[in-house]
Amino acid sequence: MRWSRIAEQDCSVARALSVVGDRWTMLVLREAFMRTRRFEDFQVRTGAPRPVLAERLRTLVDNGVLERRRYSERPDRYEYRLTDKGRDLYPVVVSLLRWGDRWMTGTAEPPVELRHRACGHQMHPELACPECGEWVDPRDVDATARR
Amino acid sequence: MRWSRIAEQDCSVARALSVVGDRWTMLVLREAFMRTRRFEDFQVRTGAPRPVLAERLRTLVDNGVLERRRYSERPDRYEYRLTDKGRDLYPVVVSLLRWGDRWMTGTAEPPVELRHRACGHQMHPELACPECGEWVDPRDVDATARR
Repeated sequence: MRWSRIAEQDCSVARALSVVGDRWTMLVLREAFMRTRRFEDFQVRTGAPRPVLAERLRTLVDNGVLERRRYSERPDRYEYRLTDKGRDLYPVVVSLLRWGDRWMTGTAEPPVELRHRACGHQMHPELACPECGEWVDPRDVDATARR
Repeated sequence: MRWSRIAEQDCSVARALSVVGDRWTMLVLREAFMRTRRFEDFQVRTGAPRPVLAERLRTLVDNGVLERRRYSERPDRYEYRLTDKGRDLYPVVVSLLRWGDRWMTGTAEPPVELRHRACGHQMHPELACPECGEWVDPRDVDATARR
């Protein structure tokens, strides 16, 4: 199967990956959550080649993940902001961050610290079950195809 | 910057993506969490071309995400199982699933149902803060670079 057909798979993971399953795209999203909004800043902070970055931003806008807004006229300048659909990718980005912190930094301290403004603590978010409130262990979850 | 150098970025997201930031790899992981273990089953269920699948499995083994175990002799046959490092990717996969369910299925029911064995409920895991126990909203989190 080719990747161009992957969105047709009856699987939400595959469909999600058809939009965000690209490494540069994930770095763009990481930056968007760090409040980066302008092309030049995305370029410097991700290190993506300019044409690649332009294409990824366009795809994210086309898919409703980012919104392109004009912030100045003459010359026209645009910035990119997360939509609700985009903001809802936070668990994906933060889970990658957490995994990288835990398994890929060697003995070094994690390079980014997350602080939960609600309680003031430094923290690493974890998955919990909204029904019972317990932390979720993958071995405690059954995944069943509906069809 | 080329992707081959991305793991050198001082960013845990980039480092994580250097191992799992590939769409076929994510589908392989999805299957591993659905308890798929054998090459033929991965092939049928992901639709990945065989050489691509072989390469992705090898990379995941080399990076300690999957473990390759012989399960029969004459002929030698191997299966692939998640290590602790691999199992720790569950939040990434489940967050992609959840986002795909919410934003990419149109009006259809999500194709996969998750049931939390601990409480018996169908559920969609959410991120919570281990310090205060509250659900995490990205707007309530400050990310600060340490260096």
